[in-house]
Amino acid sequence: MKKIINHPERVVTEMLEGLVAAYPNQLKLIDGRAVVTRKDVPVANKVGIISGGGSGHEPAHAGYVGQGMLDAAVAGEVFTSPTPDQILEAIKAVDSGKGVFMVVKNYTGDVMNFDMAAELAEMEGIQVDKVVVNDDVAVEDSTFTTGRRGIAGTILVHKIAGAKAEMGATLADVKAVAEKVVKNVRSMGMAISPCTPPAVGKPSFTLGENEMEIGLGIHGEPGTKRKTLATADEIAEELTDHIFKDMPLSSGDEVAVMINGLGATPEMELFIVNRKVNQILKEKGIGVYETFVGNFMTSLEMAGCSVTLLKLDDELKDLLAAHANTPAFKK
Amino acid sequence: MKKIINHPERVVTEMLEGLVAAYPNQLKLIDGRAVVTRKDVPVANKVGIISGGGSGHEPAHAGYVGQGMLDAAVAGEVFTSPTPDQILEAIKAVDSGKGVFMVVKNYTGDVMNFDMAAELAEMEGIQVDKVVVNDDVAVEDSTFTTGRRGIAGTILVHKIAGAKAEMGATLADVKAVAEKVVKNVRSMGMAISPCTPPAVGKPSFTLGENEMEIGLGIHGEPGTKRKTLATADEIAEELTDHIFKDMPLSSGDEVAVMINGLGATPEMELFIVNRKVNQILKEKGIGVYETFVGNFMTSLEMAGCSVTLLKLDDELKDLLAAHANTPAFKK
Repeated sequence: MKKIINHPERVVTEMLEGLVAAYPNQLKLIDGRAVVTRKDVPVANKVGIISGGGSGHEPAHAGYVGQGMLDAAVAGEVFTSPTPDQILEAIKAVDSGKGVFMVVKNYTGDVMNFDMAAELAEMEGIQVDKVVVNDDVAVEDSTFTTGRRGIAGTILVHKIAGAKAEMGATLADVKAVAEKVVKNVRSMGMAISPCTPPAVGKPSFTLGENEMEIGLGIHGEPGTKRKTLATADEIAEELTDHIFKDMPLSSGDEVAVMINGLGATPEMELFIVNRKVNQILKEKGIGVYETFVGNFMTSLEMAGCSVTLLKLDDELKDLLAAHANTPAFKK
Repeated sequence: MKKIINHPERVVTEMLEGLVAAYPNQLKLIDGRAVVTRKDVPVANKVGIISGGGSGHEPAHAGYVGQGMLDAAVAGEVFTSPTPDQILEAIKAVDSGKGVFMVVKNYTGDVMNFDMAAELAEMEGIQVDKVVVNDDVAVEDSTFTTGRRGIAGTILVHKIAGAKAEMGATLADVKAVAEKVVKNVRSMGMAISPCTPPAVGKPSFTLGENEMEIGLGIHGEPGTKRKTLATADEIAEELTDHIFKDMPLSSGDEVAVMINGLGATPEMELFIVNRKVNQILKEKGIGVYETFVGNFMTSLEMAGCSVTLLKLDDELKDLLAAHANTPAFKK
């Protein structure tokens, strides 16, 4: 295992310390809890937005803490759900009295622990609600999840729910728009090489020199098929086909596109994929309102990418365009 | 070679098409020339700022085209200097009559071709000047370069020269501040795994399972030494020590810090390095004005990082803080 780390057991703590050291005026760390919050929490008269999950998906989620997105992010160990105690700390830190909204990726452990934390918070008189993101169209059930997994589409939920909360919306209104995003967002990924969780010390799976895995999860859960490495254009076709089958789009529809790198994919390759995705959408008469290309939801040093499409209406467009200032996402 | 591409010979063209497709309101491509410009060039009454070099360093340089940074970027083939003809096209596209300033990384081919383009432009009556960035303290001469190489510090030259030009400064004033940055910026890098240029099809060098290379270049040029993989803290110490030896800093000095990933390094590891660099600076009483962590100047899918320190004064601080809106860098 080749990694630039000090000790496998300290990677999450040290990463968060390094993150907060980089943004001391914007972020703070709740010591011993692996919770990163906006420095100004609780923000008066605003629904607090939190998210989190296992580490190894950086910049998700602490990189999205800041104005217009998250108030706090809770970091579990690598590929491991955070505990209810940790999540409760985050809820308490961000509650201004207007309630707290949780953006949870659909993994069984995450959903269970966020729910448990919400119950504990409610016993302390804090109003909590949530959305569960399940944008991955690859498989119905998978290694860690009943139902579809949450992957890169989660960042668009952060952005839009965060913008809504920043405008002073109620908890119910934040939930409604977050659910609208979840209903309209779909993703599909592929990989050409695995990642190595630091505490495990060996790759999460192996692929032959000329193989790729289609539809895998961000922890390396198996996908729909393993096949011979195709061209970027063929990959773009295959990923978008899966999405279109699940969420038909028509000429005149407008979408936001996210081409997400899994950690070790050169940006060159992401843009080559975007070129084809953009062509496919144009040929179908689907308008591209905005495109995001980069590492948004990674899987350590996995090489591969995912494509996310979010079908937009006027409300979602306005919220997507609203101001955001976080380490990993600025508008 | 595992890559998400269509054909090794088309990677640069297709990447730029994919980039411009992602930012159609901000960027345009000069067809057949691999030159990306702001959509609104030439910008009236502003010195035009251009940069460029071999591809494979994305987001450098086309990702930095936009308000407050570059007016155009010229992309050579992977790890290959752009031609004088290409550079001349960029100069002509951005000149508003106030002159054009070129930010050139110190590689022999780049310097020669940018100089030749400048001469051709001057024959057409365009005033051109340049700065050569040589921030890499690793080695004095190297495979492709006489003198020190230009690496990640170049992005800070883009930012500061770009901000100065955006304020309406003259060509001479832009040059003066760019030279001030070059005088005060130092970088040093290391890698734990190589990259594979698409047209070559095999890794640029090999490293043993437990080896790292200190001080290598962004094309894989050899560095100062190859040694056993150290901890993140030891790596941070070694890289900053090299910088301090070359540019002594004293208690009370203020710096900007860039922790740059070479392409395949998980963000987790970059933040772990930043944690230690931040501690080292604090122990020396050196103030950290701003920190940038991410993939700014990469080497395809090389795994490794570089540390850049820029010693600041009030003018540089103001220009660093000024508005910028480019795909890869926003303020």
